[in-house]
Amino acid sequence: MRHLWQQNLKSILLSCFSHLVAEMATAGKVIKCKAAVAWEFSKPLVIEEVEVAPPQANEVRIKIVATSLCHSDLYFLYESLDKLLFPTVFGHEAAGIVESVGPGVTEFQPGDKVVPLFLPQCGECRFCKSPKTNRCEVAMKRRGQKSTEHCRLTCNGQKLQQFIETGTFSEYIVMNQMAVAKIDSAAPLDKVCLLGCGVCTGYGAAVNTAKVEPGSTCAVFGLGAVGLAAVMGCEAAGAKRIIAIDINPDKFEKAKVFGATDFVNPKDHNKPISQVLMEMTGGGVDYSLECIGNVECMRSALESCVPGWGVSVIVGWTDLHDVATRPINLMLGRTWTGCLFGGFKGKDGIPRMVKAYLDKKVKLDEFITHNMTLDQVNDAIELLKKGKSIRTVMRFSPQ
Amino acid sequence: MRHLWQQNLKSILLSCFSHLVAEMATAGKVIKCKAAVAWEFSKPLVIEEVEVAPPQANEVRIKIVATSLCHSDLYFLYESLDKLLFPTVFGHEAAGIVESVGPGVTEFQPGDKVVPLFLPQCGECRFCKSPKTNRCEVAMKRRGQKSTEHCRLTCNGQKLQQFIETGTFSEYIVMNQMAVAKIDSAAPLDKVCLLGCGVCTGYGAAVNTAKVEPGSTCAVFGLGAVGLAAVMGCEAAGAKRIIAIDINPDKFEKAKVFGATDFVNPKDHNKPISQVLMEMTGGGVDYSLECIGNVECMRSALESCVPGWGVSVIVGWTDLHDVATRPINLMLGRTWTGCLFGGFKGKDGIPRMVKAYLDKKVKLDEFITHNMTLDQVNDAIELLKKGKSIRTVMRFSPQ
Repeated sequence: MRHLWQQNLKSILLSCFSHLVAEMATAGKVIKCKAAVAWEFSKPLVIEEVEVAPPQANEVRIKIVATSLCHSDLYFLYESLDKLLFPTVFGHEAAGIVESVGPGVTEFQPGDKVVPLFLPQCGECRFCKSPKTNRCEVAMKRRGQKSTEHCRLTCNGQKLQQFIETGTFSEYIVMNQMAVAKIDSAAPLDKVCLLGCGVCTGYGAAVNTAKVEPGSTCAVFGLGAVGLAAVMGCEAAGAKRIIAIDINPDKFEKAKVFGATDFVNPKDHNKPISQVLMEMTGGGVDYSLECIGNVECMRSALESCVPGWGVSVIVGWTDLHDVATRPINLMLGRTWTGCLFGGFKGKDGIPRMVKAYLDKKVKLDEFITHNMTLDQVNDAIELLKKGKSIRTVMRFSPQ
Repeated sequence: MRHLWQQNLKSILLSCFSHLVAEMATAGKVIKCKAAVAWEFSKPLVIEEVEVAPPQANEVRIKIVATSLCHSDLYFLYESLDKLLFPTVFGHEAAGIVESVGPGVTEFQPGDKVVPLFLPQCGECRFCKSPKTNRCEVAMKRRGQKSTEHCRLTCNGQKLQQFIETGTFSEYIVMNQMAVAKIDSAAPLDKVCLLGCGVCTGYGAAVNTAKVEPGSTCAVFGLGAVGLAAVMGCEAAGAKRIIAIDINPDKFEKAKVFGATDFVNPKDHNKPISQVLMEMTGGGVDYSLECIGNVECMRSALESCVPGWGVSVIVGWTDLHDVATRPINLMLGRTWTGCLFGGFKGKDGIPRMVKAYLDKKVKLDEFITHNMTLDQVNDAIELLKKGKSIRTVMRFSPQ
């Protein structure tokens, strides 16, 4: 008994001490660490040594423990019309530990487990105060500036952009405190990192935005991580039928794990998928979620909904084309909407989702198909491009 | 005193007697009466003598007392891609008195004041039972047939189509009982006829579909009868600011009568109207209603809404083009939807709106710019085409 008590005390002291050591060692100093840098649009990332400045007022410096690769990283590296400034550090789906905090930060302290937010939550603006949206007006204005003012990363003296003000492919990053969510200290960071984007995006689209009702019929277009999370959200909301749609039938088995009940490969049909779904459901689905980012699929998703009350949510990202439909498809009573980050306000929503994971009410492990280190980031990119992975979680050094 | 009583009795007896006489005189027989017939697409209407068959099972024969001209009549006469079968009797915004009923009709009896419904309400289907829609599955299936099976009008032996199963430019029509709303016997038919389409369409779009909230900011695009009714709906719902938009500034004075607080003529600005509204409102309107039927205006209406929670409702009718926007405009949290007949279930909604009119809670008289007889229908059409009228109410004979 005494032995056990001693062991516990030792472990508690060691834990405190290691944080103190870490804090003392690096707080207030520039940290040199590894990052994957995108020097140019559409080129492979390069692992570099970067310098991370100490946090300034209202900022938090975070040691990223695990980061996963999301399709949005690929989209802005390879496709987007909205060309970023380069060099950029990608990565926005991650979890880590607070290393040090700047002046004025009271919400966080070194050692806190956190998830960086690409959609900040200042908590004070009219958007943050409205229950109808997860946008933050303060953050929107800040981001509109497109300057390097808030970037704290440099490589050989050159400023690096942090993709959507995150940049989690760097072992350390500096974030404004309004863009950090504190999570349960019991959370395994190499799992809950998924809540930084994809899983919340899909799950929330079903639960928060579509507001799927019990007993309803849903269709999910695209079975990447976001689509699978949408399936999981539909199931959590009590949908009785969840139709999973993908042109890659390899995804169907995984979709079943998350609650899908029906599976449709558009390639198996020689008529529009909206007609297929109309016939399967005797008039259309109650909710559809487009998790691909393809404007033709967005149209199909809308037109698959029951005229009268069907709700279609655009979840997949694209900025290349307009999305279109005949007005009658809306006038018959369908609703077309969309969301970013599943409508979750980050500081409120992520801790709730972490708790739901710890309580085994949402799945995360099942999304992870690969574990790698950051050195392998280009391999992770290739796997995702080819549809061979759902989520690859990367650490900065082997476990 | 005794004299007064005698007068009242006489008037009551006369009233009963006249109904009986009318019923006895025509019930079960073919009625010959006047109608305005559209013999061909895009040609003036022709006043003809038509024959109206007696009502069959579940049908009601109605003497139309007053009918107004709605833009949808014009649209299908001159513009629509969805070509009707001709000859057609247009007119779908009207009020009248039941002349006789067919077997199985218990809800109506001769003498009842009624409004014909272009959107029927069977009351039994899953749509009618849902509070989320005013569509009726039974009616939809019936209409899908596009046959003359349900038409009871002929002219020189030739079957006449009844436009959207109404055809109120005929002095008598036969309607299925699921497409008739009984209204208060005190209702003035030459006013409440407007509730048959335009006024309910605009008013309901604000109240039922957009669900405008008190204190909100609204924008109404297009100030015809539907747009003016939408303005009235926004005011009834408690909007604090109602921006009325039209390229014809002559409409602004009328819009003020219905509650508009701000007036915008897009011709006065050399930037997109969505940008003008964004600037006027510090970020976008809470609700926008497109009451024109122009896909570019529908896009502007959506993009004028505040990203986060703005709701845009398509009210104006067109089937010529697709409506489009960049997906981000929805993903930022805007909602795009639409409605027919303002989301009102006809049998429930019209009597309520008639009562609201009698209680002076909604305006009708202010929509009526012209009174005519049916003989002048082509003049009424010209006025509406040129934007010189809001509503022309036509009777079948001079008052």
